[in-house]
Amino acid sequence: MALGIKVFAPASVANVGVGYDILGFALDKPGDEIIAKFTNHKGLRITKITGAQGRLPYEIEKNTAGVAAQRFLEHIGEAGRGIDFEIRKKMPFGSGLGSSAASAVAGVMAVNELFNCPLEKRDLLPFAVLGEQVADGSYHADNVAPSLIGGMILIRDNTSLDVHRLNVPKGLYATVVHPKIEILTRDSRAILSDEVSLKGMIQQTGNLASFIVGMFNSDIELIGRSLQDVLIEPQRKKLIPYFDAVKEAALSAGALGCSISGAGPSIFALSANSLIAEEVGVNMKRVFKENKIRCTIYQSRINQEGAYKC
Amino acid sequence: MALGIKVFAPASVANVGVGYDILGFALDKPGDEIIAKFTNHKGLRITKITGAQGRLPYEIEKNTAGVAAQRFLEHIGEAGRGIDFEIRKKMPFGSGLGSSAASAVAGVMAVNELFNCPLEKRDLLPFAVLGEQVADGSYHADNVAPSLIGGMILIRDNTSLDVHRLNVPKGLYATVVHPKIEILTRDSRAILSDEVSLKGMIQQTGNLASFIVGMFNSDIELIGRSLQDVLIEPQRKKLIPYFDAVKEAALSAGALGCSISGAGPSIFALSANSLIAEEVGVNMKRVFKENKIRCTIYQSRINQEGAYKC
Repeated sequence: MALGIKVFAPASVANVGVGYDILGFALDKPGDEIIAKFTNHKGLRITKITGAQGRLPYEIEKNTAGVAAQRFLEHIGEAGRGIDFEIRKKMPFGSGLGSSAASAVAGVMAVNELFNCPLEKRDLLPFAVLGEQVADGSYHADNVAPSLIGGMILIRDNTSLDVHRLNVPKGLYATVVHPKIEILTRDSRAILSDEVSLKGMIQQTGNLASFIVGMFNSDIELIGRSLQDVLIEPQRKKLIPYFDAVKEAALSAGALGCSISGAGPSIFALSANSLIAEEVGVNMKRVFKENKIRCTIYQSRINQEGAYKC
Repeated sequence: MALGIKVFAPASVANVGVGYDILGFALDKPGDEIIAKFTNHKGLRITKITGAQGRLPYEIEKNTAGVAAQRFLEHIGEAGRGIDFEIRKKMPFGSGLGSSAASAVAGVMAVNELFNCPLEKRDLLPFAVLGEQVADGSYHADNVAPSLIGGMILIRDNTSLDVHRLNVPKGLYATVVHPKIEILTRDSRAILSDEVSLKGMIQQTGNLASFIVGMFNSDIELIGRSLQDVLIEPQRKKLIPYFDAVKEAALSAGALGCSISGAGPSIFALSANSLIAEEVGVNMKRVFKENKIRCTIYQSRINQEGAYKC
């Protein structure tokens, strides 16, 4: 049994344009770290949080990492064990990059590693989902699953956590731009109409299904034609200034497609290789810069490993 | 150049539960035949129609096979050539099995074969779609594409006819029961609400995407879990007496899933092999028989060839 360990859980892009609430993929970075140690105290404590500007609670039942870890400890009958967490928040809040999911994943990963992995990584999913639920109120795995196990993940059903890994074509590369504006997932959900048109649904499902065919067949052009969200993006983009110009900039630099990452305001693009992805990032950043909005660019392959012990 | 030829175009199951307007697959039979011959007259004529109980027009521009063939003849600059069609209607109307699509496909196939295939089979699609449009008023390929090229077909977009063939797991077998009640596609479309709930769409897209993953991975159990139409079937099943009992009978005999074929009233089920498919057919038929509704059962692999010259 380890005395102390460090784990990393990566950021993720949920929805992926055509897969509202059912698709997500992991990035290489940014992400969160947790250092966990056995102590002589009783129970789990969060003793230090860095990088959160005082915005994360130390109380276990209010902290996504704390809840995920605590549910797991109860499951393995070790809730009484003394464990201290140091949380190193290394990614932005409210960015649409699965910040709370990464923390929840890191929390449950940390304790599983501390006990020498009583559960397979994939079986940690329900605990991490419970953790993230504290932050955004809903039980869903579209950020948590890719952050935990990596890859481009399809969630058939969020209740039974029936998740599946898609093939990822060689070279497929993501660019993400995070403008320094904050959107709460709750607000971004509230802007959505409770209904969609049947006509729009036919278009969206045609694109979603073809996106998956494109992934399995490594058909880059089909992925490009399919990456068009006709239902959610038109509603949510109103919350993101200059969205249309940024998207246009990405596409004109050769991106296969471009849409909102999770609930926004981050915007992601997929490209056929890392060279194009870099150019896409330069172009997207330029638009925000011209409009006096600070932003950060991330470039990453589709991370296939997910969370790991450092 | 052949003096005369005969072609066959098979029935098809559109929508496939989770893919409203975007999925369809071909059956081995039933289907329609057309015999086409060069004559000394000017232009295309329909000289004989059998099996249609007088319900199909002889006028070229009102007949799905006629329109499909005529548009193709104009395309290859042969609209003036004397050609006689004999249409052998060998499948029921208004059955939800793509009857008009099969006729349209047979029409364009017949003339293409007569001229020794100036176009590839796949390139006949737009003409066949134009033909079917005469019958049901909308331009869509979910019956026409599988009837023409065979297979389990995804239509990303009906305007550009961006169609894709899915992998079909070995052994996958279809059972179709056609109760002798007629539903017009127009009526079956009219019963549908113009909107669907966002929540329902998330469930449906999760199932659709997983169905495709299941097909590509030959994951029979995933196909079974995914074959659940939560949006269209609940609305349309009201038009089909005893639908719930028939579906229950199919599932209890081991079918992976069961839903409405096209606009109904036919009901299809998919099974892991032909033996189960047979048992499923017996069970489905029993329900209709007990309720004094005549019905026909078809069993078929997923036909991979589509229309052919006999």
